[in-house]
Amino acid sequence: MSSLCFQNIAEASRRIRLLIHKTPVLTSISINKILGADIYFKCENFQKVGAFKFRGASYAVSTLDHASKKKGVATHSSGNHAAALALAAATHNIPSYIVMPENAPEIKKRAVAGYGAHICFCTPTLEAREQTLEQVVNETGAVFVHPYDNDKVIAGQGTAALELLDQIPAPDIVIAPVGGGGLLSGTSITVKHLSPSTKIFGAEPAGADDAARSFYAGKLIPSVNPVTIADGLLTSLSERTFSIIRKNVNEILTAREETIIRAMRMIWERMKIIVEPSAAVPLAVVMEHSERFRNKTVAIILSGGNADLDHLPF
Amino acid sequence: MSSLCFQNIAEASRRIRLLIHKTPVLTSISINKILGADIYFKCENFQKVGAFKFRGASYAVSTLDHASKKKGVATHSSGNHAAALALAAATHNIPSYIVMPENAPEIKKRAVAGYGAHICFCTPTLEAREQTLEQVVNETGAVFVHPYDNDKVIAGQGTAALELLDQIPAPDIVIAPVGGGGLLSGTSITVKHLSPSTKIFGAEPAGADDAARSFYAGKLIPSVNPVTIADGLLTSLSERTFSIIRKNVNEILTAREETIIRAMRMIWERMKIIVEPSAAVPLAVVMEHSERFRNKTVAIILSGGNADLDHLPF
Repeated sequence: MSSLCFQNIAEASRRIRLLIHKTPVLTSISINKILGADIYFKCENFQKVGAFKFRGASYAVSTLDHASKKKGVATHSSGNHAAALALAAATHNIPSYIVMPENAPEIKKRAVAGYGAHICFCTPTLEAREQTLEQVVNETGAVFVHPYDNDKVIAGQGTAALELLDQIPAPDIVIAPVGGGGLLSGTSITVKHLSPSTKIFGAEPAGADDAARSFYAGKLIPSVNPVTIADGLLTSLSERTFSIIRKNVNEILTAREETIIRAMRMIWERMKIIVEPSAAVPLAVVMEHSERFRNKTVAIILSGGNADLDHLPF
Repeated sequence: MSSLCFQNIAEASRRIRLLIHKTPVLTSISINKILGADIYFKCENFQKVGAFKFRGASYAVSTLDHASKKKGVATHSSGNHAAALALAAATHNIPSYIVMPENAPEIKKRAVAGYGAHICFCTPTLEAREQTLEQVVNETGAVFVHPYDNDKVIAGQGTAALELLDQIPAPDIVIAPVGGGGLLSGTSITVKHLSPSTKIFGAEPAGADDAARSFYAGKLIPSVNPVTIADGLLTSLSERTFSIIRKNVNEILTAREETIIRAMRMIWERMKIIVEPSAAVPLAVVMEHSERFRNKTVAIILSGGNADLDHLPF
């Protein structure tokens, strides 16, 4: 399915190094005390466009050949991947076409428009997205950059863990949130290679638990009408991400909605940083399964910070 | 009035170094683009207790003699100084007595209680606060640590600028918010000594502009019924802070309430960090007087991050 290996991620890291921010790792004495663990937060909420997605989009765009670059890139995305691809395209001075559902959060629509992308709105169903995207690609010749079902994108996302293990070598556990599985796939390849003794966990909302169910059933079971405040994690795994995750990941744990909201608020109040609901899911998993993490060194990837300030859950 | 000089601040810095966080300096490409300046944010919202106040409180407590330590410390404060003194006392294993107005924000009451302080509530007038404090001091023998009218406290606050100038040497302008004037006083002594060519500005809400009016009138004019969302800046200068500020500060600029709220939201949205309204006043000043700061290197002290998430202004 995918022959991605650590060398691809190392190559992605060299390629995008000057385009991305090296994000800091933060800790909180009070959160550590509450949860009885040493938790390190890799702050991809401080990444450009406010999310790790800029890594994968940057790498995918930077590896296009000259002819493809001229025609530009296209994608469908409810949010951070859209902004990421739009900025990556703008950075390379090429056009981008973004298919977005009409009901996407305002903050994400504004961000994409601000990066100069052509936005094509569609009704908020997967079918409408895919149809609209096909039309856009046919008309423009733009290259479709899938949000996660793409080896270049996965390799780019894996560079966050590469930095993380340089900052915090050999933690007991690394946790990444899982939606379509791009971040978790890339993270798992990096961590397994650089720190084989580190356990790799996926964190998923209970209301969109296709990854957990697929993982434990041993076959892909896409979500049907998932519901969660973690709007970055509504998508389902692809065969590509599922195969990487099956091979490398140790466990996928889920968290309830109220715990995700409590975790998000805990990060805001205790750490004074803004994370979006999806980024709070790994801490929510630690809160719900705290006995599993006690006295452990736990590195969490805070995936993004694009919370809609007009619609906070608390 | 006060013989404070840079050597006092250098001594404070040595004394508290292991007690405090060395806070990062962050920048935002998008804010710089919007305002046409190079702005460096010294993130005291990441300081212990979420505010620079921990510096002054730590230094004041650490310099007490043994007999005074046994009896503990007391103060009246609407917020961050209370939490700071409570934690500084707890760190030194001595009692603290905090007089707080009943209507103080919940987040600040909880923080003070969480650090193990004895809280004495009073009605929200300066008179009631001072009476209650006097009573507490008489009963316990605790040492009163004033939030800003205290040389040790001012020296401690001045250590933030000491770090800042190590991180960003010789900016064109340094801006600190001004309420009672402790932070601005300490900052001004440090900056004037280490970088004499740097201009030092105070930033004040137009609704609580006693420092600006006093500064330009050349005499102390305390606020009467100040009103501002920047609840950390309601207090007026003392003779001590006024004399230091007159000597060292170049200008005091004010900002309107709506600009303070816009600045706060801009920091949240663009930088993904949480600052309280008072901490947004320097950026609000840059927004309102943007021509003054164009193409300049501007260092801003983000004073604190204890925003009340249940009562946001946006």
